[in-house]
Amino acid sequence: MEFAELIKTPRVDNVVLHRPFYPAVEGTLCLTGHHLILSSRQDNTEELWLLHSNIDAIDKRFKVFCVFQISEWRLSYVNQEFAVCPSYPPAVTVPKAIDDDALRKVATFRHGGRFPVLSYYHKKNGMVIMRSGQPLTGTNGRRCKEDEKLINATLRAGKRGYIIDTRPLNVAQQARAKGGGFEQEAHYPQWRRIHKSIERYHILQDSLIKLVESCNDQTQNMDRWLSKLEASNWLTHIKEILTTACLAAQCLDREGASILIHGTEGTDSTLQVTSLAQIILEPRSRTIRGFEALIEREWLQAGHPFQQRCAQSAYCNSKQKWESPVFLLFLDCVWQILRQFPCSFEFNENFLIMLFEHAYASQFGTFLGNNESERCKLKLQQKTMSLWSWVNRPSELSKFTNPLFEANNLVIWPSVAPQSLQLWEGIFLRWNRSSKYLDEAYEEMVNIIEYNKQLQAKVNLLRRQLAELETEDGVQESP
Amino acid sequence: MEFAELIKTPRVDNVVLHRPFYPAVEGTLCLTGHHLILSSRQDNTEELWLLHSNIDAIDKRFKVFCVFQISEWRLSYVNQEFAVCPSYPPAVTVPKAIDDDALRKVATFRHGGRFPVLSYYHKKNGMVIMRSGQPLTGTNGRRCKEDEKLINATLRAGKRGYIIDTRPLNVAQQARAKGGGFEQEAHYPQWRRIHKSIERYHILQDSLIKLVESCNDQTQNMDRWLSKLEASNWLTHIKEILTTACLAAQCLDREGASILIHGTEGTDSTLQVTSLAQIILEPRSRTIRGFEALIEREWLQAGHPFQQRCAQSAYCNSKQKWESPVFLLFLDCVWQILRQFPCSFEFNENFLIMLFEHAYASQFGTFLGNNESERCKLKLQQKTMSLWSWVNRPSELSKFTNPLFEANNLVIWPSVAPQSLQLWEGIFLRWNRSSKYLDEAYEEMVNIIEYNKQLQAKVNLLRRQLAELETEDGVQESP
Repeated sequence: MEFAELIKTPRVDNVVLHRPFYPAVEGTLCLTGHHLILSSRQDNTEELWLLHSNIDAIDKRFKVFCVFQISEWRLSYVNQEFAVCPSYPPAVTVPKAIDDDALRKVATFRHGGRFPVLSYYHKKNGMVIMRSGQPLTGTNGRRCKEDEKLINATLRAGKRGYIIDTRPLNVAQQARAKGGGFEQEAHYPQWRRIHKSIERYHILQDSLIKLVESCNDQTQNMDRWLSKLEASNWLTHIKEILTTACLAAQCLDREGASILIHGTEGTDSTLQVTSLAQIILEPRSRTIRGFEALIEREWLQAGHPFQQRCAQSAYCNSKQKWESPVFLLFLDCVWQILRQFPCSFEFNENFLIMLFEHAYASQFGTFLGNNESERCKLKLQQKTMSLWSWVNRPSELSKFTNPLFEANNLVIWPSVAPQSLQLWEGIFLRWNRSSKYLDEAYEEMVNIIEYNKQLQAKVNLLRRQLAELETEDGVQESP
Repeated sequence: MEFAELIKTPRVDNVVLHRPFYPAVEGTLCLTGHHLILSSRQDNTEELWLLHSNIDAIDKRFKVFCVFQISEWRLSYVNQEFAVCPSYPPAVTVPKAIDDDALRKVATFRHGGRFPVLSYYHKKNGMVIMRSGQPLTGTNGRRCKEDEKLINATLRAGKRGYIIDTRPLNVAQQARAKGGGFEQEAHYPQWRRIHKSIERYHILQDSLIKLVESCNDQTQNMDRWLSKLEASNWLTHIKEILTTACLAAQCLDREGASILIHGTEGTDSTLQVTSLAQIILEPRSRTIRGFEALIEREWLQAGHPFQQRCAQSAYCNSKQKWESPVFLLFLDCVWQILRQFPCSFEFNENFLIMLFEHAYASQFGTFLGNNESERCKLKLQQKTMSLWSWVNRPSELSKFTNPLFEANNLVIWPSVAPQSLQLWEGIFLRWNRSSKYLDEAYEEMVNIIEYNKQLQAKVNLLRRQLAELETEDGVQESP
């Protein structure tokens, strides 16, 4: 097949070319079998002919939207200038029945302006996951009719939904004294509120410090190691997060109910739950591109404050109060599911470890800043390369591909029994001596699979040669 | 290659044929490319011609001896009638310098008549592991010149050895009150005694019961699970045993010193250490046949009382006082090493699980009885099939073969850091839901490797076809 045959869009109008030291050129981009041609279609102006073989790398800067065929949801650009919610991206998906004015009002009623937006649409039954900040009810039990209307607009006739508050009830109640709060059932009669308890901030930080300290403990005493592992509470946090994600997934898939998830700000535990629920429910999020899109949507564009949370190395034990291994806990939860379903993920453990490393220190711009607004102000899209453009190169992708992957279109339900959860050796015991041999075993498996491909190619080649020889024989014999 | 070309021994004399309802026939056995022929070489007597394709199964009943080319060791049949040591096999390997009369005297000085015998010969430097029962010194510090002579006979001129007592010093001292004891350094001046502490009997039993109970605990509480795992002490026992085995292996391989290992009876912790040291030191013991031979030599012929120790299911919590998961702990230690060196073993985890199951309940005779003497009395060799004859069938072997195996001729040093040791999911969480998917992943890997073989065969076939066609072309062109 010729390369030209693979070109789906041979021409794009209104393309702008930016180059250092030159004025921008607007024109039409044409893609041929051999060249990329940019022309301003005006006489006497430069026309750029670029030979494909001279292109070293393509940095694809993408935004990820769910595209809906249904009447019920719409893209809103109410946050175009980041004025309504500084931690939201310029475009968000909201119920079609709610206009931008109503969204502005709801934003004043939600922590950080984080009005409820669509996080995930479950194709199977049309149920959704929404996420937001806490409602600012305060001690007086303030209401917001638009907020109530927005949330109810996502429910079909006669249906009920679940609000999953990631804080225990007493914490949610205490939040009222600081102007926060939770949805009163009287005002949201179609919704049932469930409180879970996912820890936040310094509690997670302390947990990580204790865990790393115990992993590095050289005293060689089994009791002490197990006691310290227990005292770190790290696996307890993993279990809490996974349990809440399973609950969210169950509401959608088994109860056939839509859900709204939030904690206080809606930028930490909320995102852990919405993204893990998608790993459970949506096969595409278990592929490499799908998982990249999930990170982009549910962490970067959703405004997880990476710069604050991942300010210093995870192993550093002098932490600022805004630091917290929220993203690492999410990756650890994904690893737990991957370990339980080793054939259901297109990526391997190394992919997760790579993301952990880049969240803390990276030569790419992807994880810089705390939200899309900050990244725009810093002009990161112009000044830095995207991590994804590097990761998606075939030479890199091969390192992150799970050789056992078999696409599995089912919902996968991880076990959250404490016996089923393990310490993530690849992160926490990575400098441990034995992991070298585990890596070697993995290499060996990859080699076997690579050899498989070579053999298959050889079979094809030999078959072709055989067919050619047989044809030649035929030609010789026919006259 | 013709089958006939593979026959190494085409003829064996003095073979006896036993058949039900017929008298035994003695004669010569001949093996041809198609038949097995037994002939008494006398006129008018039956000659048996058996077509190979009519043979369904071969039950190979083997005894495993180390065959030495050196002048320093000999096989002794002093225990031919099991009179000197009821828990030893009829033939044992002892220093050449010590005659059978001396062995009889030494037997009276060692617990259960278990005089020191050869367990392992380290080819690299000629150092050895010996094992025995404790010396019966009693409170009076009784000596036995023959015992001292026997042990010293294994040392080369000017060399020192190590006695590894698997009991802590205070336990060894207390044993004197019951007639037991340990080697006084004054009487064994060339030997340095090291005390380790490997637990025995009901302590291991209690540990297993606690562990199984905690594995089955459904309370879904992480703290409780980790506390109970710690309280069971199972991993502590694993660590103690592995540490002592590493010490033994280090004495041989790094210190260049021979060792004698014993605890009280020399039938439990002693065998754990001698067999694990061989796994560490000897590449052959990491192959399937080598590991079978190790179990045969160091557990069955060495007189580990399987019938007593494995009287009831490991999961049963009403135990008799002589029950103890000594063999399971050994298998678990092997699994820990296998997990750390996933390419160095020819067998996989399923092989270890299968051995665990057969040690407790089996349709084969291999693990019945407490020692060779009991198995002889029960005529198990005549009345039952050997487990190995079943395991070694190609259809079964394929289930137990590690697809990642690459022969590794090195000594392998496992990490015994508590962080490196894990709970053996395949045994203790085998009914856990997630293990199903782990099994599937393993199957997938095996399938890939099987497919590899098929592809390789296809490549060979196509190459042959191609070569034939090319030759035909040549023939056509030459005239």
